[in-house]
Amino acid sequence: MSSDFGKNLRISVFGESHGRAIGVYIDGLPAGERIDAEELQRFMDRRAPGKNRLSTSRKETDAPTFLSGIVDGVIGGTPVCAVIQNSDQHSSDYSELADKPRPGHADLTAFLKWHGSADMRGGGHFSGRLTAPICVAGGIAKQILARRGIFVGAHLASVGTVCDEAFPMLPSPELFESIAKKAFPVISDEAGERMQAEIRSAAESCDSVGGVIECSAIGLPPGLGSPMFSGAENRLAGALFGIPAVKGVEFGSGFEGAKSRGSVNNDPFTVENGRIATATNNSGGILGGITTGMPLVLRVAVKPTPSIAVPQNTVSLSKMEPAELRIKGRHDPCIAHRAVPVVEAVTAAVILDMILEG
Amino acid sequence: MSSDFGKNLRISVFGESHGRAIGVYIDGLPAGERIDAEELQRFMDRRAPGKNRLSTSRKETDAPTFLSGIVDGVIGGTPVCAVIQNSDQHSSDYSELADKPRPGHADLTAFLKWHGSADMRGGGHFSGRLTAPICVAGGIAKQILARRGIFVGAHLASVGTVCDEAFPMLPSPELFESIAKKAFPVISDEAGERMQAEIRSAAESCDSVGGVIECSAIGLPPGLGSPMFSGAENRLAGALFGIPAVKGVEFGSGFEGAKSRGSVNNDPFTVENGRIATATNNSGGILGGITTGMPLVLRVAVKPTPSIAVPQNTVSLSKMEPAELRIKGRHDPCIAHRAVPVVEAVTAAVILDMILEG
Amino acid sequence: MSSDFGKNLRISVFGESHGRAIGVYIDGLPAGERIDAEELQRFMDRRAPGKNRLSTSRKETDAPTFLSGIVDGVIGGTPVCAVIQNSDQHSSDYSELADKPRPGHADLTAFLKWHGSADMRGGGHFSGRLTAPICVAGGIAKQILARRGIFVGAHLASVGTVCDEAFPMLPSPELFESIAKKAFPVISDEAGERMQAEIRSAAESCDSVGGVIECSAIGLPPGLGSPMFSGAENRLAGALFGIPAVKGVEFGSGFEGAKSRGSVNNDPFTVENGRIATATNNSGGILGGITTGMPLVLRVAVKPTPSIAVPQNTVSLSKMEPAELRIKGRHDPCIAHRAVPVVEAVTAAVILDMILEG
Amino acid sequence: MSSDFGKNLRISVFGESHGRAIGVYIDGLPAGERIDAEELQRFMDRRAPGKNRLSTSRKETDAPTFLSGIVDGVIGGTPVCAVIQNSDQHSSDYSELADKPRPGHADLTAFLKWHGSADMRGGGHFSGRLTAPICVAGGIAKQILARRGIFVGAHLASVGTVCDEAFPMLPSPELFESIAKKAFPVISDEAGERMQAEIRSAAESCDSVGGVIECSAIGLPPGLGSPMFSGAENRLAGALFGIPAVKGVEFGSGFEGAKSRGSVNNDPFTVENGRIATATNNSGGILGGITTGMPLVLRVAVKPTPSIAVPQNTVSLSKMEPAELRIKGRHDPCIAHRAVPVVEAVTAAVILDMILEG
Repeated sequence: MSSDFGKNLRISVFGESHGRAIGVYIDGLPAGERIDAEELQRFMDRRAPGKNRLSTSRKETDAPTFLSGIVDGVIGGTPVCAVIQNSDQHSSDYSELADKPRPGHADLTAFLKWHGSADMRGGGHFSGRLTAPICVAGGIAKQILARRGIFVGAHLASVGTVCDEAFPMLPSPELFESIAKKAFPVISDEAGERMQAEIRSAAESCDSVGGVIECSAIGLPPGLGSPMFSGAENRLAGALFGIPAVKGVEFGSGFEGAKSRGSVNNDPFTVENGRIATATNNSGGILGGITTGMPLVLRVAVKPTPSIAVPQNTVSLSKMEPAELRIKGRHDPCIAHRAVPVVEAVTAAVILDMILEG
Repeated sequence: MSSDFGKNLRISVFGESHGRAIGVYIDGLPAGERIDAEELQRFMDRRAPGKNRLSTSRKETDAPTFLSGIVDGVIGGTPVCAVIQNSDQHSSDYSELADKPRPGHADLTAFLKWHGSADMRGGGHFSGRLTAPICVAGGIAKQILARRGIFVGAHLASVGTVCDEAFPMLPSPELFESIAKKAFPVISDEAGERMQAEIRSAAESCDSVGGVIECSAIGLPPGLGSPMFSGAENRLAGALFGIPAVKGVEFGSGFEGAKSRGSVNNDPFTVENGRIATATNNSGGILGGITTGMPLVLRVAVKPTPSIAVPQNTVSLSKMEPAELRIKGRHDPCIAHRAVPVVEAVTAAVILDMILEG
Repeated sequence: MSSDFGKNLRISVFGESHGRAIGVYIDGLPAGERIDAEELQRFMDRRAPGKNRLSTSRKETDAPTFLSGIVDGVIGGTPVCAVIQNSDQHSSDYSELADKPRPGHADLTAFLKWHGSADMRGGGHFSGRLTAPICVAGGIAKQILARRGIFVGAHLASVGTVCDEAFPMLPSPELFESIAKKAFPVISDEAGERMQAEIRSAAESCDSVGGVIECSAIGLPPGLGSPMFSGAENRLAGALFGIPAVKGVEFGSGFEGAKSRGSVNNDPFTVENGRIATATNNSGGILGGITTGMPLVLRVAVKPTPSIAVPQNTVSLSKMEPAELRIKGRHDPCIAHRAVPVVEAVTAAVILDMILEG
Repeated sequence: MSSDFGKNLRISVFGESHGRAIGVYIDGLPAGERIDAEELQRFMDRRAPGKNRLSTSRKETDAPTFLSGIVDGVIGGTPVCAVIQNSDQHSSDYSELADKPRPGHADLTAFLKWHGSADMRGGGHFSGRLTAPICVAGGIAKQILARRGIFVGAHLASVGTVCDEAFPMLPSPELFESIAKKAFPVISDEAGERMQAEIRSAAESCDSVGGVIECSAIGLPPGLGSPMFSGAENRLAGALFGIPAVKGVEFGSGFEGAKSRGSVNNDPFTVENGRIATATNNSGGILGGITTGMPLVLRVAVKPTPSIAVPQNTVSLSKMEPAELRIKGRHDPCIAHRAVPVVEAVTAAVILDMILEG
C-alpha cells in the first residue's frame, strides 16, 4: 500500500515526527526465534541522534515497546507491533513551515497529495525519525539471519567527494562488527576523519552534504530471489528507496560497470571448496535477480540534508507567491552516516523475506 | 510473485527464449480505451533486433496476438493476454551452455534455484527477448497516458564513457518523438556517431560495452506515489530492475547529487502560471516519493552484454571443475540502445498504475 | 499475510487477549475525512461485553487511542495506528489450558503451527477480544460510507433454531439505526425475547448456542467488485471468515437458493425511477461478483461458543494422553449477538475498499 | 486484482467465452514436478460438457496447450501459461442479449461496470467455460498434492432438495477416485438417479435447478493457514466464490452447526496412533483458520442455471424500458454436477498455495 514492504515478512511503519508515537507492525516473523533486547537496542542506538557532534542535539529515546506477538523475548507467530513514544518535539520551530514548504522536503508534495490534511510538523511521516521503527524490524531480522550464518554490514562509502575504502571482495562478520562499533561507520578511520571534516565544513557554511552507503550481505544461499520483477535487486531497491533522502541504488559495479566492457565486467566462474564461486564480484552477488552465493553488494545514494540554515526561495501556499525561508531548529548537516544502520535494516529485512519464501 | 509488477495495473510476463511463445497477462487496463495497433507495432519495432548493423541478425516477428480482453481494438475491462510466437531459434547454438554457464548470465543462478528444471536455452525466461511482452504492456500504457497529456520518452545517455547530451529541464513531447524515430536513440546525433563507433570497437574486439539510459515523463500530475515504500521511486526502481542487465537506478541528480551540498541540490520553489514549480529539478520530479508535477527524470545503468565471443573461464556443472567457454551464435555487442523503449515501457506502466490509484 | 485484509484500504490487526495491548494498523483511509469519536465509541460499545446479562462480566474499556495518521479528528493520509490497552485479565483462569487445548478453539492448532511459542492465554490472538480493533477500522469505514449515502446494518437472524424476521427487500437507514440502538440487535423484539430465552436456556445447561447474522448494505453504486476471484463476494467472504467462530457465509438466497429453480431464483430486471432494478433480490445485490445497485445481503453462520462449562474430552499435550477439561472463567453462552457489529464492521471495510478502487 | 487468486501459487485466468482463446497464467508451481498430461486431460474431461444427456451439446476441446514454464512435461520454475482455443461458438445465438441482459447473469453488471466495452458474448469472461483454465491449474495442483499424500475429492451433495449421502468422517482416496470415474459424481448411485430425474424434470419445464457440492481434502498436515484474515477458510472461500454461480460456502457443520449447542458442535480431542485427532469433525478440519490435520470439509451452494428457456422479464438497455426475453441456444438445466471438479480444482490450488508457504 504505502508505508509497508515485504511479501512473506511484511513490515508496515506508522507515525509522525511530532505525533503521539511512531512504530512498526511486523507480520511473518518466524515463531520461536528469541530476540536479544540489548543487542537490538545497541543496533537502534547506531542511528540515534546525539551520538557525536555531527548530529542534531535532539534527544530521543528510541526504546521500542512491544505490544504484541512477543512473549518473554520470543517471537510467538502472530503479528508483532512495536511502539516508540515521541517526546522532545519543538513543534513551534516548524510553525512557519506549514505555509512555506521546505525545498527538497516532502512538505509540498504531501500538501498537494492530501490537501493539507497530513500532520507534517517536523516532516511528519516523512521525517528521518521514521527510520527508527524500520530499525526495530531490521534489527530483529539481523538477529535471525545471523543465527543462520548470514551477516549484513554497511559503511559510509563517501561524504561529498571524500571516499572510504570499498569493502573487500569477501568481507568478514568481524569487519561488519568493527564498523558497527565505531562512532563514525567507516572502514578507514583516516578517511573517516576527512569525511567528518567535510561535514563540519558544510555545517560551518550553514549547508549540508550528501553521501553514499555501501552495504553487503555474506553467507547468503544461492537461489534467493525470483526472475524479472521479484528479483533480489527489485525487492531491495523497491524497499531501499523508502529510506528518506535515498535517490539512487546500484548493485555490484552498477553505474561504473555500465562504462566498462563485458570482458572486464563479467565475473568468471570458479570452483572453490566444492562450490561454484566467481573470481570477481562485479555482479554484486546477483545474476538474473537471483543470488549467486557470493557477497551481495549494493550502494545507496543519500542526498544532502534538505534542511539547511541558509535562506532559500520557496512559496507561500496561502498567498501563492514567492517567499523566503530561513529554517531554524536543529538539523544534521549530513544524514548519510546515520542512515548506515537503516540501510542494513532494510537489506536484512528483504533478505529474510526472501529466505522465508517456501 | 516473480515475473509481474504493479498494483492496480498488473503486468505478468511469461515465456522462454526458445519455447513455444512468449507473452504478457495484463490486468487492470481501463475499459473503453482504444489501442492503436499500428502505433503499438511501431513502438515494438524500436526494440526489435535487426534494425541496424549493431544488433543481432536474428529475425523475430514481434507482432502480439491478443487472445482476450480486447474487442475490435478497444479494452474491454477483463484481463488481457497477448502472445508472441517464437521462431527462428537455433537451440543447437546453445547446447554446450547447458553444462557451462555463461559468466554474467542467469544460467548458473537459474540452475542453482531450480536444479536444472528450467528451460534455459537462449537464456530462457531471462533472455532479452522477454522484453518484447513488456513493451506490449508498456506500449499500451503509453497510448493511454498520452491521451491524458502524459508523455514518456528516453534516450541513450551514454555508451561506455561516451555521453549524449542530457535531457533539457523541460523536455517536450516533440523531443521524445524525434528520438523515437531515430535508428539510434540519442539527442545529439554527433554523440550518437561516437557511441556507435564505441560499440563497433567493442564488437571488433569480440567484446561488449554497457551504457546508461535516461528516461523522463512529462505532464504528470503532482501527488502520484505513496510515502515510504510505495513511493514513485520505489515502484519505478522495483520494476526497472526487472529489465535484464539493469544494475543501477537513480532519480534526478542521483549519485552525483550525493556528492553535492544541500544549497546546490535543493530545488527552490517558484510560482509559474499559478502553479508551484521548481527552479531546478535535481529531485527528478519526486520529493518524499511523491511527484511534484515537474518532469520525472531517472537513469538506468545497463551492464555490458555478458555474451561475448572471447574465451571465458567457467565451470562444468556436470564435472564441477573449471572449463573454458567460447560463446557462439549471434549477440549484440551492446544492448543499452535496444533497452531504451523497454525503459519507457516500464516507466509508463508504473505511472499508469499510480494514476489508476483511487 | 495473516491478520490483515483489503487492497486499497488495508486493515491489519494485532494483539493477544492477555497481552499488553491490542490494536489495528489502517492504511489507505481517504485523507480529509473527519471521524466522529463519540459515534465511533457508540459503535464500539455495541460489541463490548457487559452490556446485558447474557454476556461475560469481564469489564473492558474498548476506547481506542490513535497513535498516528489522525490530526484533530481528521484523517491525514498516512497510516493510522489505533491501540486499545488490555486490562482486567485473569490469566490464572487459563493456566490449565496451556496443556489441555479447549475443544472447538484454536488452542490446539496454534500449538501445532507455532510449537507453543504463541501467547495463547485467553485465546491469544484468536480471542473474540480481537474483534474490538476490527470495529475501530470498520466503525471509521461506516462513517465515511454514510457520508456517501451508503449504510451498512445487521441483525441477529437466528439463535439456535429461533429466528428473527428477515430484512425487508429494501431496508432503510432508519431500520439499521433502530436495531443498532437495541440492547439485543433484532428486528422483532418478540423474536428477540425468545432468542434470549434460548441463550439463557443454554447457559443454564452450562452450554452455549450458535446463531446466524444477516447483514445488508444499501446505497451501493452498481459496478463494485471485479470478476472471478476479486468479486464482492470473494472479498467479503475472504474477510468475514476472519471473525472468530464464523463457519459459513452466503449471499442472497444462498444455500436455500441452491434448492430452488431458476424461474424462482432469477431476479427479473425492471426500470425504476430511470434506473435498472430487480423485482426480487435473490442475488443479494451481486451478479458475477459485481454489485447491481440493489441492497447487498449476506448471512454469516456463527458456531456455538466453544468455551462451555460442561466437562469435555481433550488431551494433555505434555503427556499425549486423553484428559478431561472443565473450563472455568467467564464466557458468553452465545457470541452471535455480540458479533453483529463486527459483521457490519468487516462488511463496511470491504465495501469502502472496493469504492476506493480507481 | 480481479481474475486471480493465491499468494505463493498465483493463478490468473483470462479469456472470453466467444473470444479467440481462454487460458491461465500460473506462477509459483514448484520446479521439478512432472505433470501427467493424460491424467490432467481426464480431470479436464470431468467438467467438459456433452458428457451425458444432462449437459449442453456444445462440443469443446478443452485440451490445454502449454506455452511456457514446462519442458518435456516437467515444471521448470518460471511462469506457466496454458491456452485453450475457442471454437464452436454460435455468437448469433446471443445477438439479442447485448441489449437485453439475462436475469441472474453478469450481463447487466458487466455493462454497468465497463459501460459496454467488455465482450459479453456467451457470458464473456463470466461464462462457465472459464472454469476450464481453472481446472488446468487445479488439476496440476491435485497431481502435486497427491505425491505428498494429500487427496482432494468432491461429490454432488444435493440437487434441488434431493440429497446424496454425506462424505464419511474419514473419506479415502479410493472413494474420491470412484466418484471421479462416475458419469454423475455422487456417492449413492440411487440418490444420483433421483437427482438426475430432478434435473430432467427441470429441463422439461424449460427451467433449471441448483445444487450443493461437498468437497473434502485428506492427508493435510496440521498448521496450514494463518490467523484471522488469511486462514484456510478465508482463502478457500475467497477463491471458491470465483466459481460462477456459487452463492454460499460453509465449513464443517456450517449453517447447521449455528443451530446447535456447543456441547454438540465441539469436537472432543483424542489421541490416535500417537497423533491428536478429533472424535467428530464439525469444525471441518479447521480451528481458528488453521488446519487440525483432520479432513477438511466444505460445502458450496450453486444457484440454478440462470439461463432458462421460459420467457423472463428484463429491460432493454438502449430504450431503458421493460422487455421480454426468451433465451435460445444450448444451456445446462443444472451446472452443479459440472462444477464438482471445479470445486476440487480451486480447493487443491488453495491448499497447495498454503503448503508452499515458507
